[in-house]
Amino acid sequence: MANPTAAIIVIGDEILSGRTKDRNIGWLAEQLSQQGIMLREARVIPDVREIIIDTVKLLSAAHDLVFTSGGIGPTHDDITTECIAAAFGRKVIRHPEAEARLIAHYEDTDIEFNAARQKMADIPEGAALIDNPLSAAPGFILGNVHVFAGVPSILQAMFEGLRDQLPGGVAMTRLTVQCAIGEGTIATIMESVQVAHDGVSISSYPWFKPGQFGTAAVVSGLDPQVTMAAAESLAAGVRDLGAAADIMPLGQDGRA
Amino acid sequence: MANPTAAIIVIGDEILSGRTKDRNIGWLAEQLSQQGIMLREARVIPDVREIIIDTVKLLSAAHDLVFTSGGIGPTHDDITTECIAAAFGRKVIRHPEAEARLIAHYEDTDIEFNAARQKMADIPEGAALIDNPLSAAPGFILGNVHVFAGVPSILQAMFEGLRDQLPGGVAMTRLTVQCAIGEGTIATIMESVQVAHDGVSISSYPWFKPGQFGTAAVVSGLDPQVTMAAAESLAAGVRDLGAAADIMPLGQDGRA
Repeated sequence: MANPTAAIIVIGDEILSGRTKDRNIGWLAEQLSQQGIMLREARVIPDVREIIIDTVKLLSAAHDLVFTSGGIGPTHDDITTECIAAAFGRKVIRHPEAEARLIAHYEDTDIEFNAARQKMADIPEGAALIDNPLSAAPGFILGNVHVFAGVPSILQAMFEGLRDQLPGGVAMTRLTVQCAIGEGTIATIMESVQVAHDGVSISSYPWFKPGQFGTAAVVSGLDPQVTMAAAESLAAGVRDLGAAADIMPLGQDGRA
Repeated sequence: MANPTAAIIVIGDEILSGRTKDRNIGWLAEQLSQQGIMLREARVIPDVREIIIDTVKLLSAAHDLVFTSGGIGPTHDDITTECIAAAFGRKVIRHPEAEARLIAHYEDTDIEFNAARQKMADIPEGAALIDNPLSAAPGFILGNVHVFAGVPSILQAMFEGLRDQLPGGVAMTRLTVQCAIGEGTIATIMESVQVAHDGVSISSYPWFKPGQFGTAAVVSGLDPQVTMAAAESLAAGVRDLGAAADIMPLGQDGRA
């Protein structure tokens, strides 16, 4: 069975204006990859009702899973919830459990649970809540769309709580072949190794620092044996050119 | 007249896999905003020919300006150039000026200007080159699509050279001082030169190639005389440290 596919929708004028730098695409991409879920696209879109609705409809039809970030706070420009509901033809209701969590959250503070904050208990009818261990206001799941807060720490905590419920695709084997040689010198070797190993893909990342340069070639595939064989074939090809090549699991290659 | 609109297309499996964190959307968003250009959306898409072509066609029709990042390097997965050409129904040609710049760039290194690297001189017919003061391989403009490298420092240097040609751009004098010395060594000189020359700002871009490294310092200001004086003062300071420094107009530095 093919791995599930996913799309990310980052919702917010503040990202498009450059005022806030998105950190959610990169973090989610990494988590999904570890989970064996194939992220196929990410979009940053403005706080415009029609654009949010159209984008949610389009991407939720095109992919197995959609993740959104942003626009579920208490202010007037937080319109994500109503737009997701509209995309699925649902009403927004005051959700009793969400309201109870928010009341409990504000109870022992001097923050008033005012009308603006109460809005965070409004959830599309039929949606399942996503826990927010940091600030109570929940995200939600409607259809295949997973709605997260935009604040990175909250989004990350929400995702951790959700992780086990996500379809567990087969985690890909990913190996880094660290090559002490320029990317352009081994371009044809990488290409021929990829062609020779079915289902394996090779991406390469050149790096430089004073006095040194090299290429990190990331070899990925669903089949661990075939993927390792491809990495070994690539390393052998690099060593034939007289340069060092070391194979290690991705994430343990000592490079950001 | 309404402000021009723009879209960003980040092209690369490495961003979607989480291996590399995109930094170009946030940086470009901020620059466009300062320029009075309204960024309306950003998409991260995979290295898939049909998706690149369709996305470029769609967004170049929907917005005044499109900026792409990634996929113009020497390897088999760098397919941006051929896809942009296809989106505009153009052929890709070996561009003589691009080739000359790359030959000059590799001339004084022990890196072979092989077939893979020669691919970086392939440009869609009729496109205008975008200078790359860091590693020579140019970007290009075709229609309203501006094609940048994915490496953030190179993208940023490419954008600086292009800034005045964009709508809302204030025509500034921009000079590159190519310094054969590390950025950290001349940081204080750059700062004091900037402070001493009213209205002048200096940005610096370190570069590395095998056996060599240096810093491209971009000196910008509204007043041509003051800006040149600042560049000369910086070059003199670098030469006092025993390192070469050459002043050239940004956009004509086709760096060796």
